[in-house]
Amino acid sequence: MSAKFPVLKPGATIGILGGGQLGRMLAQAAGKLGLRCHVYSPEADSCAFDVVGEKTCAPYGDEAALARFAAAVDVVTYEFENVPGETASFLARLKPVLPDPKVLATTQDRLAEKNFVAELGIATAPFAPVGSAAELAAAAEKIGAPAVIKTRRLGYDGKGQATIQKVGDAAAAWNAIGRAPAILERFVPFEREVSALAARGRAGEVVAYELIENVHRDHILHRSRVPAEVPAALAGQAIVIATKIAAALSYIGVLAVELFVVAEAGKRRLLVNEIAPRVHNSGHWTLDGATVSQFEQHIRAVAGWALARPQRLGRVEMVNLIGHEVEDWAKLLAEPGASVHLYGKREPRPGRKMGHVTKVFPES
Amino acid sequence: MSAKFPVLKPGATIGILGGGQLGRMLAQAAGKLGLRCHVYSPEADSCAFDVVGEKTCAPYGDEAALARFAAAVDVVTYEFENVPGETASFLARLKPVLPDPKVLATTQDRLAEKNFVAELGIATAPFAPVGSAAELAAAAEKIGAPAVIKTRRLGYDGKGQATIQKVGDAAAAWNAIGRAPAILERFVPFEREVSALAARGRAGEVVAYELIENVHRDHILHRSRVPAEVPAALAGQAIVIATKIAAALSYIGVLAVELFVVAEAGKRRLLVNEIAPRVHNSGHWTLDGATVSQFEQHIRAVAGWALARPQRLGRVEMVNLIGHEVEDWAKLLAEPGASVHLYGKREPRPGRKMGHVTKVFPES
Repeated sequence: MSAKFPVLKPGATIGILGGGQLGRMLAQAAGKLGLRCHVYSPEADSCAFDVVGEKTCAPYGDEAALARFAAAVDVVTYEFENVPGETASFLARLKPVLPDPKVLATTQDRLAEKNFVAELGIATAPFAPVGSAAELAAAAEKIGAPAVIKTRRLGYDGKGQATIQKVGDAAAAWNAIGRAPAILERFVPFEREVSALAARGRAGEVVAYELIENVHRDHILHRSRVPAEVPAALAGQAIVIATKIAAALSYIGVLAVELFVVAEAGKRRLLVNEIAPRVHNSGHWTLDGATVSQFEQHIRAVAGWALARPQRLGRVEMVNLIGHEVEDWAKLLAEPGASVHLYGKREPRPGRKMGHVTKVFPES
Repeated sequence: MSAKFPVLKPGATIGILGGGQLGRMLAQAAGKLGLRCHVYSPEADSCAFDVVGEKTCAPYGDEAALARFAAAVDVVTYEFENVPGETASFLARLKPVLPDPKVLATTQDRLAEKNFVAELGIATAPFAPVGSAAELAAAAEKIGAPAVIKTRRLGYDGKGQATIQKVGDAAAAWNAIGRAPAILERFVPFEREVSALAARGRAGEVVAYELIENVHRDHILHRSRVPAEVPAALAGQAIVIATKIAAALSYIGVLAVELFVVAEAGKRRLLVNEIAPRVHNSGHWTLDGATVSQFEQHIRAVAGWALARPQRLGRVEMVNLIGHEVEDWAKLLAEPGASVHLYGKREPRPGRKMGHVTKVFPES
């Protein structure tokens, strides 16, 4: 269906739902390609507003504002996977929305997402749906501890999660997440966290980056490096998984699949943790470390343009600047070989992603 | 004096005079660094307007608009060297203007510029001022033919120029340029055209890129490549010349010096052709071919931030897309290894710079 959408011409306008740093960097990539952007965000201090000529500040449920937005753009995409499904569906009746809003229906519900992945024959950690304290107790018994309970909806960066260290913690965890519909996942002692980042174009072609290795702190991405230190065959499997997921979703644009590398009986295998239906923090290195960034690839895909074949420019390390870490900006700017990206956010609140720094080390 | 200007903090606003592609790319670089931009341009369809949150569309002589602009920004810079001197001076009484407006007084007048260069002991082609038909005839006799007559003010991309093939052409050339105050320059058969691109920071430090080699067509830059194919010693001399000029102007920001390489009696030497007090078309390769772009260096300099030390990523070629050449955009986007930049200009008029394409070839 999406193949039928008209191919954009330079000068066309891309509507972006969400006003954070991902929307900002998408808009910057669109600008490089001669495309205009119109950012729609409910927050007045959205940092993406500062780099576009047109903006709408209105709630996601404001249908009059959405209709005006749709009339002003040629295609709609999003930087934020928690855009309400109704918002995306409303817009899709007026203009092409890419990736398709049905992707959101899958990825906004952790249970639907895990079921979708499992149905593709792709491994995940053991999981079970939880709708009540009793179900949680039963699931905890079945899956075992330690385990993590996560609300099915609206969780990111560790929010809406609680850990169950022993089966008896279940009741407290159920309260901690607000007794919302949830999913219980067995905690898997992983060797590494990795992410597979790929773009899928309108003709179904998929172009992946090399596998990325990630380190989280307090559930927030701290550091990424490329290439991941895993055997080539395992890295290849991760790319195959991302490609399979993108194809099964009829996905258009860039998506990231977060995976765990687990070592069991001396053998390594991959478990899918999460799908991010958007450009991804672990792909920010591509701005400096690859010949084409994830943001440009996403824009090319939603515009109906040819995807590029990214070449990596060296071994790459990317570190997030979280909260007050951004106050080191002057020191970082003076550091040889450091490429500093600041998102223009006014307040460095704890846990807030304020920028990132990339270093590329030429490989001999 | 400029060292006394306050150092900007992330989130500050840079005012950019001029709304073309150079302003657009400056704004994109500022965005990467968490800075806001406010573009001031008299033309409603300025392509830089599309990538900034704040814009003023008003004539350069509109003092009320200029005062509002000054009040809204923390520092002013320009992408356009023909900003009226009065505009820059007016703004400089309200906010820091970098580079200093007195630079414009030198570079907007070809005669003042050539005299300035000559006074530094730097070679140029033989030249003479022309204020009347009689002076032109005398200058043509003295300098010899072929020669080029150029209006002292407001010339770029070959406008306001006429060629004198033989001394008898002088009268026709004088009419062709509208009998405006002019400068006659001996036409020098050059081996190559090169440009030296350097940034000078507020503390006086200068960081140069490697020498760039340029090919013009119809007086418009067609193609640049780095490194220039000249002996290392000559390339070094060009960088020394640019550094000397930047220091003599107390320059803050990026400037380009266009030079001719001439071969005389088997020896090569450099003649300065022109100073561009701004980021320069021949430096667009730095967006893809260097670890820091000319646009980011300029923004760092005017913000009072540390300059970066650019590393070149390979042998680089940049080709401009002029006028209808931009209509090949889809083919170019599909070309392996081509980084396509489109400026978002609506009409591909003949001679108009619509975009550029860069290719980086890794060096072994």
